[in-house]
Formats: sequence, structure tokens, C-alpha cells
Amino acid sequence: MARIVMKFGGTSVGDLDRIHNVAQRVKREVEAGNQVAVVVSAMSGVTNQLVKYCTELSPLHDAREYDAVVATGEQVTSGLLAICLQENGIDARSWQGWQIPIRTDTAHGKARIQEIDGSELIRRMTEQNQVAVVAGFQGLAPDNRITTLGRGGSDTSAVALAAALKADRCDIYTDVDGVYTTDPRIVPRARKLDKISYEEMLELASVGAKVLQTRSVELAMNEHVRVRVLSSFKDGLANDTEGTLVVDEDEIVEKQNVSGIAYSRDEAKITVRRVPDRPGIAASIFGALAEQNANVDMIVQNISADGTTDMTFTVGKADLPRARTALAGVKEQIGYAELLEDPDVAKVSVVGVGMRSHAGVANTMFRALADKAINIQVISTSEIKVSVLIAAEYTELAVRALHTAYGLDG
Amino acid sequence: MARIVMKFGGTSVGDLDRIHNVAQRVKREVEAGNQVAVVVSAMSGVTNQLVKYCTELSPLHDAREYDAVVATGEQVTSGLLAICLQENGIDARSWQGWQIPIRTDTAHGKARIQEIDGSELIRRMTEQNQVAVVAGFQGLAPDNRITTLGRGGSDTSAVALAAALKADRCDIYTDVDGVYTTDPRIVPRARKLDKISYEEMLELASVGAKVLQTRSVELAMNEHVRVRVLSSFKDGLANDTEGTLVVDEDEIVEKQNVSGIAYSRDEAKITVRRVPDRPGIAASIFGALAEQNANVDMIVQNISADGTTDMTFTVGKADLPRARTALAGVKEQIGYAELLEDPDVAKVSVVGVGMRSHAGVANTMFRALADKAINIQVISTSEIKVSVLIAAEYTELAVRALHTAYGLDG
Repeated sequence: MARIVMKFGGTSVGDLDRIHNVAQRVKREVEAGNQVAVVVSAMSGVTNQLVKYCTELSPLHDAREYDAVVATGEQVTSGLLAICLQENGIDARSWQGWQIPIRTDTAHGKARIQEIDGSELIRRMTEQNQVAVVAGFQGLAPDNRITTLGRGGSDTSAVALAAALKADRCDIYTDVDGVYTTDPRIVPRARKLDKISYEEMLELASVGAKVLQTRSVELAMNEHVRVRVLSSFKDGLANDTEGTLVVDEDEIVEKQNVSGIAYSRDEAKITVRRVPDRPGIAASIFGALAEQNANVDMIVQNISADGTTDMTFTVGKADLPRARTALAGVKEQIGYAELLEDPDVAKVSVVGVGMRSHAGVANTMFRALADKAINIQVISTSEIKVSVLIAAEYTELAVRALHTAYGLDG
Repeated sequence: MARIVMKFGGTSVGDLDRIHNVAQRVKREVEAGNQVAVVVSAMSGVTNQLVKYCTELSPLHDAREYDAVVATGEQVTSGLLAICLQENGIDARSWQGWQIPIRTDTAHGKARIQEIDGSELIRRMTEQNQVAVVAGFQGLAPDNRITTLGRGGSDTSAVALAAALKADRCDIYTDVDGVYTTDPRIVPRARKLDKISYEEMLELASVGAKVLQTRSVELAMNEHVRVRVLSSFKDGLANDTEGTLVVDEDEIVEKQNVSGIAYSRDEAKITVRRVPDRPGIAASIFGALAEQNANVDMIVQNISADGTTDMTFTVGKADLPRARTALAGVKEQIGYAELLEDPDVAKVSVVGVGMRSHAGVANTMFRALADKAINIQVISTSEIKVSVLIAAEYTELAVRALHTAYGLDG
């Protein structure tokens, strides 16, 4: 017997047939003797429609009212799944964020969970074997108003609930059947990983493998929640080899140098040319960008030649106009020569906890790219990741070359 | 300055343009110096879609889950209208049933309001001139679960809120511009009534003038809430002559013998032939019907001839199969000869508080129908109403004849 949280995303509950399939899957877990809580997203398309309503009525709408409106999507799914489970002979009831309650801060539209009172849910799971069907994505602010956690927030709801319920596992059902060594659409020989560490998952998530919301992985790491990513479109009882388990690094015996290759085409490169090389210049540039809420990712500064230097960095493509405005505003103050923009770039990253103890990981990357004559524009490294910026047209070629170079081909 | 509750039904908030119109109307009341609370229904079509989901998943779904699902329709509208009011420079916020709270009993799907705590809303109306946008149709059961009040329940929400807020008036905006002496589609010369008593409105509502939910009128009568029915599709600030005011009989100076002619084609006639005329027979028949939840309206029993009698009554057309089953089940026990059914009947009623003090009202009706050679099948009277059952094909003819006979033609 295990206590598990099962989370189903929008496509997994996209219509009544799929809700019926979800009910069957939950039923199998219950019949296998497990205590189950389910977290559901809105039916696919519903949230977008509700957001559109809010935006059309007022581009700068009150985030508290936005939350009241969009939280209804998950409310509907929770009620419908409870009905469907009951129809299948399973005792179940829906729970809204305010009923549990799932307490959050007041940051409407992107609230953070602060506390979940899981006592009543645990009582019903243990005493009545009742399935709790929890509306994901939503919570309750201290002033008794509905909050939402931001897009993809239902993953975070599920992990936080798993922690509160002291669940043995948090199963995230989605439209992919696990985490792969890279995007299978680019590399058909990509392999599904059986296990991956929280740290690796975080790096993969933040560089473009959009399987789990970043915050949910951080939370899982902090709360030691065993998360499994698996497909809701497969039948049968989930077994131990299905999906990908996201766990503490200690649980991974065979540590690969490199676990996966990720890529992102969502960034743009900016170069500030001939910046006077004096203390405080970097602070001026990135202070101006922060004030405009332009999120900076990779940063490279070369050593100075003639008293000036070139500063290169990347921002999200959507932030490019804001970054341009910010830098134009401080041109006088900083006194740089010119601003170069290049939106046609891709960031390719190799990720693996094993690289901590293995030298030469970065070098393998550079050599593999050089063999394909792919020019590296920017390099950035972290403890378990090496990222390079290249021309966007080489993305697939680079990913394939690296997948082979690190011996990941299946 | 007045404190008013404004209620808008589903067609009045059917799309974003209409929500915008509603916001304009609310704004005009606020700018005229009034304190305003608004009660909204779901956007038209939304509730039907949600009900359909529940029914398709399980014909006999849990009413508590049904309530969680369908209550979202009003939640969405309340948030959207609050956003739209803010965009128009009006301070506003949405309130869900559980936030106020609007306390109800536990009769999910058809709950009754028991108590509304209006203190916080009054404080915000008086101190901040903030408009409360309240989700209609919904409330909170003692066990902290969402309830709904049954179809058309938003009218009741509005009247109950008006009572709790000690509002000067409850304006019900709908797709008709008031209560008419009869259906204008049948009698083009029907006149809009400026005032009507609660009692008359009740009789008109229950016999087919579907302007207000019956329960909302009962509540208004008990709580002395001045209700006004008016159109949401007219422009300009509502003035005193607009719509129809539903008030205490005392406020109506010129009492008409007959205020209006109503009709209903929703009933079916059943005759139980040759029932043994002994004590307890009526109880057997109507007890069996009640057990099957078949709602009986008019009942006629003739005096006995040869030790048997004929019992005629009407039930809602939708209840006809259930009534048939119920009566078949007690045929042995009662020992009646046969069962006659006639679904092609119409009930036509004349309603007016003035008939209490005026003789001859019923006779005028019978004569007018006789002049048109319309046969009366069943007669039923109350203090302020005379109803007759006739063949359905004569409905329009009868309504027109009576409208003229009572001098109601405009």
C-alpha cells in the first residue's frame, strides 16, 4: 500500500472521454490498495478562453479578479472527475483551494503556496479510502480571496500536496511518457530516462524541456517528494519502470556524465559594443534591464583592450523590446558605441550531475560542435551544465551531434 | 441617494459587449449617487453546457459535485464584470457565495438561503462607495461546500441580498421591459403594468409568466423588498416609470379587478374513471403520485352517482409518465375502472387582488369563454385567481377574449 498523488494536465482531461480514462486510471490505483489524491488542471483550452475574456475587457485587469475568473477551470474539472469516479464506484469528492485550504501569499496571478492543511484529506483517505480530487493551480490568500499560481502551477499544487500528505510518490501524468535524453522529434534515437536527479531536471526544465514547471521541481527537491513523470495516454497500472522518476541524486547509482541535451530558441542575443571598462558599468547596464523587467540569462564580458570592452548577454525574445528601451535610456550615462541584436540564436545545453566528477565534459562538447563547423558565440557553465549559444539554424545539427558524442543514442 | 441591488440575467451578460453595457448601466447608478450591489447570472449557455457535462458523465450525479461545477458560471461573470467596472473607473470587487457568505441549507441543487452576512458589503458600499459584484445562484452549506439555488435562483439571490443590505430597491434586469397584462405575442394590445402586488406576481409567475422565479417573489413579499422588473436592453438611467414595480398591495391605490391574464401549456390532464367513493381514496391516489414526485396542480372531484366518482387533476407534462406509473401501481388497491390522459390542454387564469372585493369576476370569465364557444373542462379558484382548463387549441382565442372582457386592452 502506498499513498500517492496523481496529477493530470489539461490535455489529459481535455474532454469527457479523457476524464473517463483518468477515472479508470485512478480506479486501478485504488483497487491496487493505494490511498489516492488527484490534482487536476482545467480542460485544455478553457484557461486560454478565460484569460482572453479578462484581457479583452481590460488589458491591465485586476489580478484578483483574473484569479477568480481563471480558477473556475480547475473547479469544473475537479467536480466532473469526482462525479466520474463515483459513477465508477469509487468514493470521491472535489476540493477547491479555499476548502482545504491551500494557503498562498497575496501575489495574485503568480502566488506561492505557503501552507497546506492536509489533515482532513488524510483522515478521509485513511478512514474512508475516499479519493480527494483537488483543483490544481489555485489557493487562498490571507484576505480570503482566490489566488492562482501562474501557468503550469498545477504541477506545483501536486508536489506541495504530496508533501503535505506525506505521499510516497507524486505521479505527474502528461502527454509525454517521461523525460528523454533530448527532444525525440529532433533525435529519433533519444532514450527515455528511468531516473533523473532534481538538479538535472531543473536544468533541463529551465533550458527548454517543458515537462514540469520549474517551481514544482524546486519544491520537490526541498521537500524530498519523489516525482514521476508519465503518460496519461497509456493503459494499465503504472509500474516501476514506467515514466521517469525525479529523485535525490543519492538514489541514482549509475551517474552519467551527461544525462541529457536541451535546447531553447526563446532567447535573443544583445551585444553592447565598446563599453568604457570601468567599475560599476555592469551594474548600470543590468540595473537598467532589471528595472524594465527584462530577464537576463547568459552574460559574457571579454577582457578589455583599449579601455573599452564588449558586453554580450541574452534575454527572452519577448523581453527584447523592453531591453532595447532600457539600454537606449542609459546610452548617455554609460557611453557605449552601439547596440547589436540577434534574435536568431539557440541555446544548447548538456546537463548531468556526473560532470562534477568527470573532467573533459565541456571539451567533448566544443570538439563535437567544431567537427560540424558550428561556431560557438557565447559559453556559460554551471556545476552540472554547459550551455553554448549558436546560430539558430544549427540547432538540430548541434543537438544530434552532442547526443551522439556523449553516447546517449539508444 | 438610494441603496440598490441590480440583478442581470444570462442574456444580459451573454457576451463581453453586453457585460460592457451592464457596466455602463451600473456606472450611471453610481454616478447618480447610489450605493450599488450587483448580482449576476452565468453568461447565457454556460450553465446548460456545465449541466450537460455532469449529466453525460453520470445521469444520477452527486448534487454536491454538480453544484461545484455549475456555480463556476456565475463566478466567471462576477469577476469579468468587476474587471469591466474597474476599467470604467468604478471601484468594484467580485464576491462568491462562500466569501460573503451566503449561508444556505444542504439541499444541493435546490438549496434555500438561510442567512446572508451583509456587514462587510455594507461597510464597503458606505465607506468606499465600492460596488459589490455578487455571483448569483450560489451559496455555502454548513459543511463548507458550494450549493446552488436551482434554475432561476439568481433572482432569489438578488432579493435576499437586497433584504440583507436593507436596500431601497431590487432592480431585476431581464430581456423583457416589465410585467404585462398578458403575453404581448398573443395580444399585441397588452399593456405594461406600472405596479403589481406580490400576490398577483406570484400567481402570474406560477401560471406561466416566467419573468421572476416564484421563490424570489415569496421572499420579496416576506421581507418587504421592493422589486422592479425592467429591461437591460434599454439605455439611460432607470427612472420611476420604467419597468414594473412589485410591491405590497397597500402601495397600489387603484386596484384592478383583474390585473392580468396568464396561461400555461405545460400541464396534462388525467382522469381516473369510476373510483369507488369511500373515505381515503383521494389520499391513496395523491399519496401514490407524491411518492413518484409527480406534482399535482388542479384537482376536481364530482359528487358521487352510483357509488363511484370521477377524479380529474393536472400534472406537469414532464411528470405524466411518472403519474401513469404511480396510478398503475395502485389500480388493484383502489379499484378504478380506467385512466384517461389528455396532454392537449391549457390552463388560462385571470389574476387580480381586486377580485377579493368584487363579485362577478368568475362569471365574466365564463361568459366570455362561452361567447367564443370554448368549453371549460376544469375550474379552480383561489382568493385572487380563477383558472380554467381548456383544449390547448383555444389558448390564444381565450386569452384575447378575456383580455378584452376585463377591459385590459391598451
